[in-house]
Amino acid sequence: MMKQNDLKQAMTLAAEQTEARLLDLLEEKDSDLSLLFESMRYSAMAGGKRIRPYLTIAFCDLFGGRLENALYFAAAIEMVHTYSLIHDDLPCMDDDDLRRGKPTNHKVYGEAEAVLAGDALLTMAFEALTRASVSPTDAVRAVRCLSEAAGARGMVGGQMMDIRAEKISPDRETLMRLHKRKTGALITAAAELGCIAAGVTDEETLDACRQYAGGIGLAFQIIDDILDRYGDTATLGKQTGQDEKDGKTTFLTFADKNEAYSEAELLTDEAKAAIEVFDGSENLLLFADMLLHRTH
Amino acid sequence: MMKQNDLKQAMTLAAEQTEARLLDLLEEKDSDLSLLFESMRYSAMAGGKRIRPYLTIAFCDLFGGRLENALYFAAAIEMVHTYSLIHDDLPCMDDDDLRRGKPTNHKVYGEAEAVLAGDALLTMAFEALTRASVSPTDAVRAVRCLSEAAGARGMVGGQMMDIRAEKISPDRETLMRLHKRKTGALITAAAELGCIAAGVTDEETLDACRQYAGGIGLAFQIIDDILDRYGDTATLGKQTGQDEKDGKTTFLTFADKNEAYSEAELLTDEAKAAIEVFDGSENLLLFADMLLHRTH
Repeated sequence: MMKQNDLKQAMTLAAEQTEARLLDLLEEKDSDLSLLFESMRYSAMAGGKRIRPYLTIAFCDLFGGRLENALYFAAAIEMVHTYSLIHDDLPCMDDDDLRRGKPTNHKVYGEAEAVLAGDALLTMAFEALTRASVSPTDAVRAVRCLSEAAGARGMVGGQMMDIRAEKISPDRETLMRLHKRKTGALITAAAELGCIAAGVTDEETLDACRQYAGGIGLAFQIIDDILDRYGDTATLGKQTGQDEKDGKTTFLTFADKNEAYSEAELLTDEAKAAIEVFDGSENLLLFADMLLHRTH
Repeated sequence: MMKQNDLKQAMTLAAEQTEARLLDLLEEKDSDLSLLFESMRYSAMAGGKRIRPYLTIAFCDLFGGRLENALYFAAAIEMVHTYSLIHDDLPCMDDDDLRRGKPTNHKVYGEAEAVLAGDALLTMAFEALTRASVSPTDAVRAVRCLSEAAGARGMVGGQMMDIRAEKISPDRETLMRLHKRKTGALITAAAELGCIAAGVTDEETLDACRQYAGGIGLAFQIIDDILDRYGDTATLGKQTGQDEKDGKTTFLTFADKNEAYSEAELLTDEAKAAIEVFDGSENLLLFADMLLHRTH
């Protein structure tokens, strides 16, 4: 229990520090730009679990890196996550009116404005990466890492597969590849950016961190699918049963609740095993369990 | 006449080399991703004047840089330009069905798919910047330059001002600031990326190049406005009179045709003056004149 409090404190602190950095980056005095920056802040500061920035900060800390360098990377990864939510919520995509209980960006600012707020956040993420006081070599690694993870062969590619999956039901293997791209790639990049912020270059170490993040990313998605079918609407803060209503292929298309949960458990155990060798990884091990056991 | 043929040849060659690099970057064998990459290629390979990549390549050449390094930067800037056109054409933005005589991206692939193709091109632009064999320091400069020019304080900010301008008619000064952001920022970045590819660090030289690009960028927009009102539909390949029909504020809101043309001429002369001191700038001087005298 004591240890879980440690994790909660670390997560709260990471979220606060990331949000302060986001606010710095999203401040603009030029009145020509005030509406655009307001809309960017509206979505970037809308809360959420801040899972990705926590990973960046925790991995930087695990390998003795400076918090200050991790913060620009953490803000960058959260900007990319935020832009993807804004674009996902658009009428032509998932057409969602609410996100975390608040009206979605296009509901407040308009559809064209929401497309632009997303574009601006994605672009600013790369600017933020160049502001960290890491070596130029590490800054270039960070840009390569984030662009590959967020782009056509990563998150956007997964999102495109997801759109098509609504039309042609994917098999289990295709669903796994879809989620590795759509959710896993950015979570993995979050961990890797933390390593880069700490100047880690050893490929074996980087691979261990990627394995951890890839594992918890996939487990995260399985739990998402279980909560959507069996979770509590009030606890979740959103309507359950949405996937079934949409006729969406999920992990529960191929497994019952217990089987799916066992798979998430196995993935979590493997993820933990990949990094438990590193001194100071306790919080990251608890973090993996926390994601597995979450009820919202 | 001889000299203009030199410029035309240089522009054709730059376009071909950029397109070859774009095709390399946009090749993907994974069948999960074939549709996304097809849609990215569809818009990236749809032709156009390739003005921005020409500038990148010409400025790299002007300062003795290697063509090979300029090509990744040229492809990157054209990817950003292409993504901005895909998003501009969306139903929630300008709602255009045709671009350069071909159906727009969302008409062929669907609206959600077009949002994603744009997102993927923007993201891949930053990946492309990291692939050039320049020093890590210069690669970071390139990422900073492109992200600032394309983002909230540059192109996207200008686009947001443009959307709002349809609702609140801007004054002349606001219109200038809008176009400096919407068109000027990316054209300036194109020139600056060429300088970075050649390893130019002298601030005075960089400023001269920025002045040139900023000047031709604004002149370009004025000529655009004149052609929209007075140009020939057949020569232009698009319907004229669109701005007037949309009640859009343009340079012709504040000046008649001759005054506007004189202003474009003055901007072009100032632009040329900024770089004529550099040996080998002949083609770039002719290029400025060509943009001024264009009829489409």
